Amino acid sequence: MTSNVVIVSGGQVEGLAELVGQSQQGKKVIGVDRGALCLIDAGLDCHVAIGDFDSISSKELEKINDCVETVIILPAEKDMTDTEAALDYVVKYYPDAQIKMVGLLGGRLDHLMSNLWIAYHPSYQQLLAQITIVDSRNSLSYYRPGRYHILKEKDKKYLSLVGMTAVKQLVIKDAKYPLTGHDFSFPIALVSNEFLGEQMTFSFEEGLIALIQSND
Amino acid sequence: MTSNVVIVSGGQVEGLAELVGQSQQGKKVIGVDRGALCLIDAGLDCHVAIGDFDSISSKELEKINDCVETVIILPAEKDMTDTEAALDYVVKYYPDAQIKMVGLLGGRLDHLMSNLWIAYHPSYQQLLAQITIVDSRNSLSYYRPGRYHILKEKDKKYLSLVGMTAVKQLVIKDAKYPLTGHDFSFPIALVSNEFLGEQMTFSFEEGLIALIQSND
Repeated sequence: MTSNVVIVSGGQVEGLAELVGQSQQGKKVIGVDRGALCLIDAGLDCHVAIGDFDSISSKELEKINDCVETVIILPAEKDMTDTEAALDYVVKYYPDAQIKMVGLLGGRLDHLMSNLWIAYHPSYQQLLAQITIVDSRNSLSYYRPGRYHILKEKDKKYLSLVGMTAVKQLVIKDAKYPLTGHDFSFPIALVSNEFLGEQMTFSFEEGLIALIQSND
Repeated sequence: MTSNVVIVSGGQVEGLAELVGQSQQGKKVIGVDRGALCLIDAGLDCHVAIGDFDSISSKELEKINDCVETVIILPAEKDMTDTEAALDYVVKYYPDAQIKMVGLLGGRLDHLMSNLWIAYHPSYQQLLAQITIVDSRNSLSYYRPGRYHILKEKDKKYLSLVGMTAVKQLVIKDAKYPLTGHDFSFPIALVSNEFLGEQMTFSFEEGLIALIQSND
């Protein structure tokens, strides 16, 4: 059974091998457009390649065809981004998998925002709790109303909660800057909080929050 | 009269001199925290330095004190970010200036989002139309409902409209992918559009839009 999917876009490749992680049974690695090439060039597995591939040469596309089992070529002019097409593929074939997304940050700001805006898209609401967006300095997960226990990532210092919407009754515990039931009438970024120990707790009643662990 | 303010944060310094622009009468350059040091080290003017300066050494702070006319030292633990403090300074002293913000992108994702989230903050609504956020590959401006003519930046290829909220009756003209009065019920990123000529027009009736010109 496939319980882990890694989606690799071409946005940032620093520390790619570490971010994708050691190969393991049942893990599926999806390369999005140039991301497929990054995987191959780094000597990493790429099980599925998906994209319009209009930013790579025909020779590079040939290389992808040679190395990757499933290659899905999308039209260049379409209503979704290549990353969204990759998520649609995951919804279809691996709806229950944990999804790590690599290479979505850095580079073009419009691409970065488009990638973060997945959180607002009705099509991906059922996937949202399964997604983590990572690069070498940041990891981001989305949370809908509820109560959550978060483990500190060993290599990260800062803990930030970014409201993607207005937020009601936000409680933060076991962190340097705690909160006891605060309403925010507009999306607000509470940055540079820190874990007091190995675990913190937060809860809220309405809204959508991006939790980020990061390093300088 | 000061008609231009440049706010320089320490997030990205690639092409700093070009982004800050040639010195000109009436322009005020504000260095935020490490951004003040970046300006000095690049041999550029820094008229005001503002920040908690807890990420720089006392020797570096001395250098800032020696070179900068007005130095404002904020407490390390506060409810606003250094960038927000810089905007408060602009609201107070240069409320009518055009504001270019440099060095806000790249690095920590929580900082980047916090910087983009200025758009949601009630305190900066009156400044929003005056702000442009730039780095070497991107320029971003915010728009409230209305009708706008946008000039193509010579060094940029792509044009993206990112809904920061739901948007009503979006019209896009003189672009590769036009729109004729579309409603978006959730924030959506319309990326990789392009100018057909030197100018495009867009309008909308409700919501908040970030318009980005960018390059690969």
